[in-house]
Amino acid sequence: MSTLIKNGRVITASEDIIADVLIEDGRVSAIGRNLQAGDDAEVHDASGCVLVPGGIDVHTHLDWDFGTARTVDTFASGGKAAAFGGTTTVVDFCNQTKGTSLLACLDDWHRRAACATVDVGAHMVMTDVDAQALIDMKTLMKREGVTSFKLFTAYPGVLMVDDGTLMKAMQVAGEDGGQVSVHCENGYMIQNLVEQAVAAGNLAPKYHHLTRPAIAEGEATSRVIRFAELTGTPLYIVHLTARQALEAVTDAKQRGVPVHAETCTHYLYLSTDEYEKPGFEGAKAILSPPLREPDHIEALWGGLRTGVLDVVATDHCPFTYEDVYGLNMSKQLGREGFHKVPNGGPGIEERMTVMFDGMRDRGLSLNRFVEVTATAPAKLFGLYPRKGTIAPGSDADIVIIDPEAKGVISAARGHGRMDYSLFEGHEVGCKVAKVFLRGRLIVDGETWLGEDGYGEYIPRSASGCM
Amino acid sequence: MSTLIKNGRVITASEDIIADVLIEDGRVSAIGRNLQAGDDAEVHDASGCVLVPGGIDVHTHLDWDFGTARTVDTFASGGKAAAFGGTTTVVDFCNQTKGTSLLACLDDWHRRAACATVDVGAHMVMTDVDAQALIDMKTLMKREGVTSFKLFTAYPGVLMVDDGTLMKAMQVAGEDGGQVSVHCENGYMIQNLVEQAVAAGNLAPKYHHLTRPAIAEGEATSRVIRFAELTGTPLYIVHLTARQALEAVTDAKQRGVPVHAETCTHYLYLSTDEYEKPGFEGAKAILSPPLREPDHIEALWGGLRTGVLDVVATDHCPFTYEDVYGLNMSKQLGREGFHKVPNGGPGIEERMTVMFDGMRDRGLSLNRFVEVTATAPAKLFGLYPRKGTIAPGSDADIVIIDPEAKGVISAARGHGRMDYSLFEGHEVGCKVAKVFLRGRLIVDGETWLGEDGYGEYIPRSASGCM
Amino acid sequence: MSTLIKNGRVITASEDIIADVLIEDGRVSAIGRNLQAGDDAEVHDASGCVLVPGGIDVHTHLDWDFGTARTVDTFASGGKAAAFGGTTTVVDFCNQTKGTSLLACLDDWHRRAACATVDVGAHMVMTDVDAQALIDMKTLMKREGVTSFKLFTAYPGVLMVDDGTLMKAMQVAGEDGGQVSVHCENGYMIQNLVEQAVAAGNLAPKYHHLTRPAIAEGEATSRVIRFAELTGTPLYIVHLTARQALEAVTDAKQRGVPVHAETCTHYLYLSTDEYEKPGFEGAKAILSPPLREPDHIEALWGGLRTGVLDVVATDHCPFTYEDVYGLNMSKQLGREGFHKVPNGGPGIEERMTVMFDGMRDRGLSLNRFVEVTATAPAKLFGLYPRKGTIAPGSDADIVIIDPEAKGVISAARGHGRMDYSLFEGHEVGCKVAKVFLRGRLIVDGETWLGEDGYGEYIPRSASGCM
Amino acid sequence: MSTLIKNGRVITASEDIIADVLIEDGRVSAIGRNLQAGDDAEVHDASGCVLVPGGIDVHTHLDWDFGTARTVDTFASGGKAAAFGGTTTVVDFCNQTKGTSLLACLDDWHRRAACATVDVGAHMVMTDVDAQALIDMKTLMKREGVTSFKLFTAYPGVLMVDDGTLMKAMQVAGEDGGQVSVHCENGYMIQNLVEQAVAAGNLAPKYHHLTRPAIAEGEATSRVIRFAELTGTPLYIVHLTARQALEAVTDAKQRGVPVHAETCTHYLYLSTDEYEKPGFEGAKAILSPPLREPDHIEALWGGLRTGVLDVVATDHCPFTYEDVYGLNMSKQLGREGFHKVPNGGPGIEERMTVMFDGMRDRGLSLNRFVEVTATAPAKLFGLYPRKGTIAPGSDADIVIIDPEAKGVISAARGHGRMDYSLFEGHEVGCKVAKVFLRGRLIVDGETWLGEDGYGEYIPRSASGCM
Repeated sequence: MSTLIKNGRVITASEDIIADVLIEDGRVSAIGRNLQAGDDAEVHDASGCVLVPGGIDVHTHLDWDFGTARTVDTFASGGKAAAFGGTTTVVDFCNQTKGTSLLACLDDWHRRAACATVDVGAHMVMTDVDAQALIDMKTLMKREGVTSFKLFTAYPGVLMVDDGTLMKAMQVAGEDGGQVSVHCENGYMIQNLVEQAVAAGNLAPKYHHLTRPAIAEGEATSRVIRFAELTGTPLYIVHLTARQALEAVTDAKQRGVPVHAETCTHYLYLSTDEYEKPGFEGAKAILSPPLREPDHIEALWGGLRTGVLDVVATDHCPFTYEDVYGLNMSKQLGREGFHKVPNGGPGIEERMTVMFDGMRDRGLSLNRFVEVTATAPAKLFGLYPRKGTIAPGSDADIVIIDPEAKGVISAARGHGRMDYSLFEGHEVGCKVAKVFLRGRLIVDGETWLGEDGYGEYIPRSASGCM
Repeated sequence: MSTLIKNGRVITASEDIIADVLIEDGRVSAIGRNLQAGDDAEVHDASGCVLVPGGIDVHTHLDWDFGTARTVDTFASGGKAAAFGGTTTVVDFCNQTKGTSLLACLDDWHRRAACATVDVGAHMVMTDVDAQALIDMKTLMKREGVTSFKLFTAYPGVLMVDDGTLMKAMQVAGEDGGQVSVHCENGYMIQNLVEQAVAAGNLAPKYHHLTRPAIAEGEATSRVIRFAELTGTPLYIVHLTARQALEAVTDAKQRGVPVHAETCTHYLYLSTDEYEKPGFEGAKAILSPPLREPDHIEALWGGLRTGVLDVVATDHCPFTYEDVYGLNMSKQLGREGFHKVPNGGPGIEERMTVMFDGMRDRGLSLNRFVEVTATAPAKLFGLYPRKGTIAPGSDADIVIIDPEAKGVISAARGHGRMDYSLFEGHEVGCKVAKVFLRGRLIVDGETWLGEDGYGEYIPRSASGCM
Repeated sequence: MSTLIKNGRVITASEDIIADVLIEDGRVSAIGRNLQAGDDAEVHDASGCVLVPGGIDVHTHLDWDFGTARTVDTFASGGKAAAFGGTTTVVDFCNQTKGTSLLACLDDWHRRAACATVDVGAHMVMTDVDAQALIDMKTLMKREGVTSFKLFTAYPGVLMVDDGTLMKAMQVAGEDGGQVSVHCENGYMIQNLVEQAVAAGNLAPKYHHLTRPAIAEGEATSRVIRFAELTGTPLYIVHLTARQALEAVTDAKQRGVPVHAETCTHYLYLSTDEYEKPGFEGAKAILSPPLREPDHIEALWGGLRTGVLDVVATDHCPFTYEDVYGLNMSKQLGREGFHKVPNGGPGIEERMTVMFDGMRDRGLSLNRFVEVTATAPAKLFGLYPRKGTIAPGSDADIVIIDPEAKGVISAARGHGRMDYSLFEGHEVGCKVAKVFLRGRLIVDGETWLGEDGYGEYIPRSASGCM
Repeated sequence: MSTLIKNGRVITASEDIIADVLIEDGRVSAIGRNLQAGDDAEVHDASGCVLVPGGIDVHTHLDWDFGTARTVDTFASGGKAAAFGGTTTVVDFCNQTKGTSLLACLDDWHRRAACATVDVGAHMVMTDVDAQALIDMKTLMKREGVTSFKLFTAYPGVLMVDDGTLMKAMQVAGEDGGQVSVHCENGYMIQNLVEQAVAAGNLAPKYHHLTRPAIAEGEATSRVIRFAELTGTPLYIVHLTARQALEAVTDAKQRGVPVHAETCTHYLYLSTDEYEKPGFEGAKAILSPPLREPDHIEALWGGLRTGVLDVVATDHCPFTYEDVYGLNMSKQLGREGFHKVPNGGPGIEERMTVMFDGMRDRGLSLNRFVEVTATAPAKLFGLYPRKGTIAPGSDADIVIIDPEAKGVISAARGHGRMDYSLFEGHEVGCKVAKVFLRGRLIVDGETWLGEDGYGEYIPRSASGCM
C-alpha cells in the first residue's frame, strides 16, 4: 500500500522545495519530481500547500494521575487534539510517585498510554532519587528507551530535589547517553514569597506571577547550567520564559556547555496582562513559570531567531476551568487563593498553527519553524531520523498546511477535553489540512480518521545532542 | 540520460540518511530507498561512502589581472583544483580597475571565466565608487545576477574606501536585495605600523602579522557592523580571523543586525608559528588578515560550533613561492621586506577534506560541515535551491567522500598551478572519491573527466539572508 | 592674611566630616577641629553648610574665535558665570586654526585668556596634524603645561582627522605623559545622513538628532578605544551620550585599556523631547552629540553610579538664541535648516547645583559628586593636588553650598552673556552661598567680588591617570 | 596629651599630600602644614614615610571555640600580630552554636574578646535561623552594634543554610540597615565531589581544590546575588576567588544590585601550585575556597583595578601545621585524607605590607591600597568616619610605613601564635615602622607597646553602603 503526495512545497529544517513525496509501508520511500506510484496508490494533491514533518511536542502531561485527581486529556483525547493541530508525536512525562520505583511508574504510564492516538515517548520525572532509582535510570536508558529524566528545582517538599541529587542524576544519565531536563525556578524563593503574599491577604490570580519572579527562574537556570558544565551531561531547560534565564543559556552555549532550551507557545504571545482579567479569568493562565512582561516576550522571540532557544513545546497540562467532568479538580479549587489553583493549561492543539503563523509574520523562515517544532525535538530526544523530518526512511508523519487559510482559535472548536483555550479568539493565517501518521491519513480537514491505540510507543536513543 | 547513486549516506545541512539519489537532466530528480533507474542509467554504488552537496567556495581570486601581473590559477586550472577537492561552484571576485566602469569590468571577468571547469558566480569588488558606480550596482543586481559587492577598509590609497562610501554602497545594495561584503582591517592603523616597522628595519616575514594586529581587524569589524545596523543592508564579513571580530559579530547577531561571517580553512589550523619558519618560508603564509595566535584559532572553532561563523571559504589567491611561470610575480618579490610580498595563498583544493576531517574530529556534525561549506554559502549568496544541497530539483552537484580513506596533502599532488600548499604534509582521514557537476562525473578518483568551459555562469538572486 | 571657615561639613572624594578649614596665603593650611586663626583672620561660619572643592570644568569653549565670529562668553564673563555656579577652574579648548602652528595658537589663546576671572588651563585642539605639529606637541607638554590634545572623528573637511593621524598623535602624546581627548562620532555617517535629510527637505531642528544617531557615537567610541589599546596612551572620551558608547567604555575598562569618559550635565537631564518644542525653540538644544532618548539618559546615570563615567563637564559653547550682540552669529542662522544652526549651548553656571541636587536625589553620595565635578577632572588633567580637593597644601578653591536652599534656574538670573539656559525653570534644592578662589572670596551670595584677570593660568602635569 | 606626626606623606582613599597630623585625646584633631603642638606633645618625624589609616581586617576567626577545639590566636595574640602588620581594627566572626541564641553567643564572644589588643567589632554567623534568631537580629542591629550577618551556602549539615533561610535573613537584615555576608560555594556539589574523591582513594592535599571547583563558587555567588536583587538588602561576598564569581559581581554591579565583594591576600598571590608541594606541605594551603589557577589570580587583580573587588581581608583562621599547643587540633588531623584537614590559614599580619608592595608593583595607586584595606571596609561595615581614614574627628589609628625598607616574611618572625605563614620567604619592599591606635603608639619597630585589653569594642552603624 502506497501513498503519493504531489506538488507540495516540502519544508524541512534546511530545505524548501517543490516535490512529490512517496510513502510506502508507513515510511517515506522517496522525495522527487514527478514521482510515479502504483495504480492502487492513494494520491493527494498538495498544490499550493506546505508539507512539514509532523509536529513533535516534547512537553505534555496527559492523563497525569496524582492520586486524588488527574489531568482531563487521556492519551486518546490529547493525542486527537494534538493530531488536529498537526502534532503526531508527543513525549509525555511519566511521573514518579514517591515511594514507587521508576520501573513500576513506567509500567503504569504504558498502561495509560496504550490508548494513544498519536505516537508517544516517555520522559521519567524523578522525585525520589535513592540508590535504586539511580540503578533504574540505567535500565530505563538501556532497555526501555527512556533517555531523558526530569527534575525540579521548584516546589519544595513536593517535587523539588536538592542540588546534590540533581548532580548525581546528571552523572548517571550522562554515562549512558541520557539527558536531564530541569524545571528551573528557585523553589525556596517562591515559597517565601507565596507565604508572605498569602499572609498579607494578597490572594488574587495576579499574585501567581508576582510571587514567581523572573529572577527566580534566572537563578535556577544559571545554577543547573553549572552542573551541566561540571558533569558534561546534556541539560535541557524546559519552558524557559525569563530574559535572565535566556541570558544564562546564551552565555553557556557560547562557552560550550551542553545545554539546550525550550519555550512554550503561550510564553511567546501572552503577557502578565492575562492575570489582570476581570473576575477569576486570570486563573486560566496560572501555570508555572508564569506569563511574563512584554520585554521577556521580545527576548524569547530573539532567542528563537538567534538559535539560543531550540524547541517550542506546549506544557499541555489540562486542568479545566470549571469542573466539567466532576473530578473535583479544576481551576475553581483556587477561588480562595491563587496558591490553590492547579498550575497548568492547555496548548497541544494550538502550537503548530500559532507558531507557523507567528514565525512567518516575524520574518523567521519556515525552515526554522520546522526545526523548533519537529527536527530539533527529534534530534535532542533520540527520535531522529525516524521522526522529525521528511526524508527517505523516516516515518511518514506529514502535515499538509494550507498557508493562506484563515482561522480563529476557540476551545469550542477544539478536539480535546479542555473547556478553555489560552488563545481563545486568536486569529491565524493558516490551517492544518491533512495529517498523516506513519502513512495513515488520520486527520482530513475536520474529519477524524485516527483511532484509539493506533499510536505507538517509540523507544528513544541517546538524548541531548543535535 | 540518468544517473543513479545508490546506498550512500546522504548528508545535507539537516539530514543524515541512507538513500539513493537519482539524477536526470543534470538535476536531482529523486532521493529515496530502492530507487529504480532506466536500463541506460549510469549507476554508482556509494555503499560505505558519504554524499554531500558539491562545495561552494565564495572567496576566490582566479586569474586576477591587476595590470602588471595576475594570479596563476585560471578559471580552468583553479576550477579543476577545486573539483578535485570537492568544490563544484566558486563565486569569484571581479575587481573594479580604478577608472573603469563596473559593467566593463564584469565583461572582462566573463571573458576570463569562459574557460571555467566548475560553475562560477561573481562578486563585484568596488574601489572607485562614484555616482555611475552606484547606478551600475542596480544594473548588476537586476540584470547581471551579481548581488554582492565587496569593499575594503584596508589598503589605503589602493583598495580602501572611506566610511561614507561604504555606507552609500550599502544603501544602494540594500534597495535591490544585494549584500555588501567587507574586508575588515583598519587600513590606517596597519599603514602606520608597517611604516614604523620598515623604518626600524624590521623586515622579516613575521612583521607581517605584527603590523596587522587582531585589534585592527576587531576595530574594522565593529565599525562596518554599525553601518549594517544603520542601513539594514545585509553585511558579510569575509575571512574573519580575530577573537575581537568574532565577539563583535556575536554581539551583533544577538541584537538582530543582519550580519554573517566567513572564516577560511587556514585560519582554523595555522598559527603565527608559520612566520617563524626558517629562511623565507614564512612568506608563504603572508596573506591578509594574517594567521593568528592559538587563542584566536580556538575562538574560531567555537564560532563554528555556536553558529556565529556561517561559512568556511578559502580566499584562494594563488601567488607562487618561486616565480615558476616567469610572471615576475611571486613571493620572491618580497625578499627585501615583508611589505613587498604579494598577499595571498592557495587553498581551493584543500578545504573540503580538511574541514570534513577537522569538524568530525572536533565533534561537530557532518550536517554542520555541509552547512558551512555549501548550504550557507548557497543561501547567503542567492544560489539556493539550485546549489548548496542534495534535493529534488537542485543541480546534481554531488561529492562522494570515502570517510575512512587516509591521505596526505601535498602541493606536488595538487591539481592547480600552485607550487606550494599551506597544508603541506597535513594528514586527513577522508578522500574525495567522485565528483558530479550538474550530473556529469568530472572527477573519478585521480581521473579528470571535466573540461574547460563546462563550468557555467550562475546568475544569483537576492543575497545576504538564510 | 588668613581665612577660617568654621563648622562646615567638608566633603572630598572620600571624606564627609565636620571640620574647620584654615586658609593661609591662598592655600589650605589645615583642616581640623576647633582650629584657631589669628585676630586678623577673616572668619566664615559654615554651620549647616557643605564645603566642596571648587568645581573644575574641563570642557569649555570661551571666546572661541573662528574667524568670522566667536562664542559670546569671554574668559571674564564665562569665568564669572562659572564662579557663581561654584566652578573655580576651567580647562578650555585652544583651537588650532588650519595653517597656524600650535604654539602660535596657544599664544593667541593666552592673550584672550588674560582677562580670566577664574583659573584656567588649556587643551590643544588639533586639526592640522603635520610633522611640525607632532614636534610642537612635545613642546606643549614639556614647556607649556598643555598635556591634553583633542581630535575629532566628526565634521569631515572641517575638524575630522583620519585614524592614522589620530594614532600618530596618540603615540606622540603618550611619550611625554600626555593624553588624547576625542569627540567621538562617525563624521561620514552623519554627513551622509545630513545630506540625505536636507535633500529630502527635512529641515526642522529634530533632524539634528535624527541625523546624528547613537550608533554614530558608539562606532567612533569603539574605534578610538582600539587605538588606546594599541598605543597604551591614555584616552579621554569627551561628552559621552550614547548607551552604545558607554558599553564600549565599560568593556574597555574591564580589559584594562587606559580610557576615561566624560558626560555633560544636559545629557543627564534633557531628552530628544527638546527638539519637539514648538517653533524654533528646538534649536537651543542643537549641540553635538545631540540629546538622546530616555534609555540613554538612564544608562548615563548608571555609568555615574558604577564609575564607568569619570567626569561631568559642560561643553559650554555659548552661541546665543537671538543675535543679541550683533555678531551675526546665533541660532537664528539656522532658520532655514537644522544643519546651519551653530552647534553648542550653555551650561557653565548650572553644572554644580544641578549635579549636587541630582546626584543626591538619585542616592549617589556627595563624595561621588565631588569626584566627578572636581577631583577626577583634576587628577585626569594634571591639576591635582593643587586643585580638585580640600587638603593641606592645595589651593583654597572652596565652595560653600547651602544644601537646603531652593532655587529655580533662569537665564535672566545668570551671570554670563547667554540669552538662554537649557535648564530654564529647573528647580534645584541647593544654592551656592560663597566661593573662594585661592583663598579670596569671589562670590558672596549674589555679590561679585572677583575681578577680570584674577584668574591664573595653571600649567598642567601628566594627564590621563588617576 | 597630644601627639604630632610631622612631614609624612599622608595617604587616604583620595588624597596624597605632605602634611602634619595632630592628635588630641585619641583622635585626629588637625591635618595641616606646619602644625604646632604644645610643649608636652609627643612628636614623631615621618619624613620620607607614608601615613595610612590603620588597616581594618573584616574577616578573622580569633579564638574560635567550636567545642572540641579552637583557633590558636586569641584576641590578644591575634590582635598583636595584626598590629605589627599595620592593622588596628578587626571585625571578627561570632559563631552561633547550634541551639544557642544569637545574643548568648555574642555574650560569649565579648567575654573572649575582652583581652583584645586592637579594636574589635563582631559579625554574627548564623547557622540555626529560627523565628527567635530573626527577632534577635533586630536586637543585634539596634542595640548591640552588630549590623552584619554571615551565612554559608557551603558545608551541608554543618554551616549551610537553604536559600529560603538566606532570603529571610536578608529580609530582616535589610529592614534595619543590616547587611548579609555569604560564603559562596555550592555545598552539595562539593560534598558529592569530596565523597567521590574519597571513595576513589584520592586523598592527597591537591584533592582539596579539585573537589571545590571554581564553578561551585561561581554558582553560589550568582545565586545569592539574585536574593540581593530581590530583597534590596546589601550583600557582601566574602573571600571571592574565582573568575566566574567575579563576573557575576561585575554584572550585578552594572545592573545596580547592592553587592560588594572581598578577596583575601593569599588568593592574589598563591596558586594551586601550593597543593603540589612535597609531602604534606600542601595541607598548609587547605582553606576554603581553595587557591586557584593563575588565570583566576589575574582576574582578581583586574577586579581590584576596576573596583569590582572592594575589600582585601585575610580570613585569618589560625590552625597550626603541627599541634604545637597540644590542642589535638592542627593540619596533622588530615594526614589520612585532605577532607579531614581543618580548613583555614593565617594572614592577619602579612596583609598590609604584602598589599602595599603588590599594588604599588602593579601600578595601582596608594589611594586604592588605603581604600581596599581600610576605607572601604570601614564604610561598608558601619565604622566610618570613626575608622578607616585619617581625618579630623576620626580615631587616630595611623600606620607609618617606610616605603623603601626591605623585608622577608617568615612565621618565625611573626607576632602571633601560628607556626607557619602562607607567605614564608616572600620579599616585600616596605616595612611598618610605627602603629598608633586611638593615638597611642602600640608598635614601634620591633617593640610592642600595646597591652591586652586596650582594644575596644566598636559598635557599628548601618552596613553595606559606601
